[in-house]
Amino acid sequence: MTGVDGTGIPNAQPDPERIEGGAPGDTPRLLREQGVTAPLGFRAAGIAAGIKESGNPDLALVFNEGPDHSAAGVFTSNQVKAAPVLWSQQVLTTGTLRAVILNSGGANACTGPGGFQDTHKTAEAVAEALSNWGTSTGAVEVAVCSTGLIGDRLPMDKVLTGVTEIVQEMGGGLTGGTDAAHAIMTTDTVPKQAALHHPQGWNVGGMGKGAGMMAPSLATMLVVLTTDAAATTDQLDTALRRATARTFDRLDIDGSMSTNDTVLLLSSGASQIPVDQADLDEAVFAVCDDLAAQMQADAEGVTKRVTITVTGAPTEDDALVVARFVARDSLVKTALFGSDPNWGRVLATVGASPVRIDPDVIAVSFNGFPVCENGCGVEGARDVDLSGADIDVLVDLKLGDASASVRTTDLSHAYVEENSAYSS
Amino acid sequence: MTGVDGTGIPNAQPDPERIEGGAPGDTPRLLREQGVTAPLGFRAAGIAAGIKESGNPDLALVFNEGPDHSAAGVFTSNQVKAAPVLWSQQVLTTGTLRAVILNSGGANACTGPGGFQDTHKTAEAVAEALSNWGTSTGAVEVAVCSTGLIGDRLPMDKVLTGVTEIVQEMGGGLTGGTDAAHAIMTTDTVPKQAALHHPQGWNVGGMGKGAGMMAPSLATMLVVLTTDAAATTDQLDTALRRATARTFDRLDIDGSMSTNDTVLLLSSGASQIPVDQADLDEAVFAVCDDLAAQMQADAEGVTKRVTITVTGAPTEDDALVVARFVARDSLVKTALFGSDPNWGRVLATVGASPVRIDPDVIAVSFNGFPVCENGCGVEGARDVDLSGADIDVLVDLKLGDASASVRTTDLSHAYVEENSAYSS
Repeated sequence: MTGVDGTGIPNAQPDPERIEGGAPGDTPRLLREQGVTAPLGFRAAGIAAGIKESGNPDLALVFNEGPDHSAAGVFTSNQVKAAPVLWSQQVLTTGTLRAVILNSGGANACTGPGGFQDTHKTAEAVAEALSNWGTSTGAVEVAVCSTGLIGDRLPMDKVLTGVTEIVQEMGGGLTGGTDAAHAIMTTDTVPKQAALHHPQGWNVGGMGKGAGMMAPSLATMLVVLTTDAAATTDQLDTALRRATARTFDRLDIDGSMSTNDTVLLLSSGASQIPVDQADLDEAVFAVCDDLAAQMQADAEGVTKRVTITVTGAPTEDDALVVARFVARDSLVKTALFGSDPNWGRVLATVGASPVRIDPDVIAVSFNGFPVCENGCGVEGARDVDLSGADIDVLVDLKLGDASASVRTTDLSHAYVEENSAYSS
Repeated sequence: MTGVDGTGIPNAQPDPERIEGGAPGDTPRLLREQGVTAPLGFRAAGIAAGIKESGNPDLALVFNEGPDHSAAGVFTSNQVKAAPVLWSQQVLTTGTLRAVILNSGGANACTGPGGFQDTHKTAEAVAEALSNWGTSTGAVEVAVCSTGLIGDRLPMDKVLTGVTEIVQEMGGGLTGGTDAAHAIMTTDTVPKQAALHHPQGWNVGGMGKGAGMMAPSLATMLVVLTTDAAATTDQLDTALRRATARTFDRLDIDGSMSTNDTVLLLSSGASQIPVDQADLDEAVFAVCDDLAAQMQADAEGVTKRVTITVTGAPTEDDALVVARFVARDSLVKTALFGSDPNWGRVLATVGASPVRIDPDVIAVSFNGFPVCENGCGVEGARDVDLSGADIDVLVDLKLGDASASVRTTDLSHAYVEENSAYSS
């Protein structure tokens, strides 16, 4: 068997699950039991390399068998960027990637020049292992992602031994993708995968991790997306930016922005089916949106999934700013934890935002029940039942036609507990 | 006895405590057992008017006997302003006040035109009661402050009956001030008072409430300051703005800005001692600073008093923006609750602020122990003992000479508990 990229590497065997999942139909189908290896041309693995003291899986690899190697990425806008972010931003300037190596158990952030050298060495080790395995690869074709505690150097002996091992473990079936999704978990309680099978015959898959330190731009998250559509780097970049702007960028668990956020999209082109930008946009958005919903549902200490929607804003940006303000307000979030329809706190937060509002026209509803009209309480507002796990907060500014939503959670005892004991 | 303002109202009798407290000395003396009635020419009272269902004191009055009635005020910058804020801003445009009526048990915010009429009626009732009592007073000489749950109308029958009663209760001694300080408490566990006795013979007193929904501009607080120095409205306004900008404006418990924040400064001129601007500035600052420290120490759910200081900033505004970002970060605050020297979270937050920084030169220390130098961890950083109740976080940006500090607290289980059960 010769790989389609002519490197002599065996391609993944057709996988019954994948073929079933990818069978053409009338509409795109989204499945959560499949991830980065749902599209053709990708192998993945996840192993326990000993980076985490717990012995849990902590090293993941996603390998693009080609024939294409187009790739795009978006990264944290935090000025304090982890070494792997600095590295991956650099290598992405070529618009191509052959592999992504990801570790949990340490963020490799605030680790100075030594930490950057560690990232570089990791990429070199992956390139060497892949080359030994049969795919001539350079370090600049390998993106690196890390997640975990900020400030400590990685145990490089374990990382490098793990890299050699993980290349041998790469599988083309869905198991490899699921193993990889497990290996990038930190405070996540479940792995997060999604795959979309397009009726035209191409696929988009993805995996992500992220449970806390979640705020724009991007949550504290690592996400790797794959597609077998034949797409250019520009197409990938456009689809990725459009999707992240409305999904991960609008997931705000605690207003804290990570040093390590990375979302990558790799195309193998293995379906050999060219794709329209609009179709690709829609598919990448669907996978990102589903992964974002999974992250919200598994956020640190979550007891309520909360969506803040602002309508009637002069512009979408205005709507987003107000929605973020509400999503970040500790008093709103603690009230929702207590199932308390305290709409006054919502109004106080809206008024504190930098967006010009008219306090005398605002309307607010909780789960569809009006609680505030024209800036005043509605009879029965204190009796709205918010005891369920999902709460929709709708704020209508009544100033225009634009709207935006932000996903967040409540602020619970469990959030405090989890985050007061993370590093100690 | 005829009052010094010629209205026939008896002046407060000289009070042994006050005379003792106000005795000239070499340096200003600050006492916490005295408040708004420490300066000459002020009476105050606090009663239970039945506004709170608990039966706790909920109505306070501060009355300026004169001879001067200069006054200045600063108010929340929230666009959603409570009715009493709208009223008091309006009456303050004259630069004079005879009285301040304050209630806890309800914020009278988001209550529409009816809520504003309630405030107006309250001021009219105070004016009438004071006129009946012997001081001809107009409603426009009465400021109104309210604090409590947003969104409900006040029980006006109880408020108006209380107003008639409280004017009879006004005392000139220190008891009246202390009663008033008790009556404005909401989630506060202790009343907050401070008085400064200046060696030149004049005094500044103050009381405040505020424990949550604390963020710029101003915390969720009501503060009334008094002085018997002979000062113009302009002098008061200048001193008040300078003091609040560096005290209450830099107290940030939860990033939530209230609809009701009000800080008033009234001068009776009863000492007949003219005051230099610099001396007045210093005295008003000292009282505000002490009240802010008392609010920090009694904040909702506080287990740690935290001061975030940013040095080495290009401008003081830059330093303040960064300090606020750190003070508001849930992950920093939960870590400090857990006595966890997680400096990486501090760096992530600094990097997320809009101020341009250089991540490779930043230094951080906790309680004087260096934990991060040049953006990297210092050996032993994870072992710094933060188990005490006071934590100083110092961030040196190493980019300039400006600095600023923000007072905050940790984010504890008690904060979540208190704020998830407030209205329900």
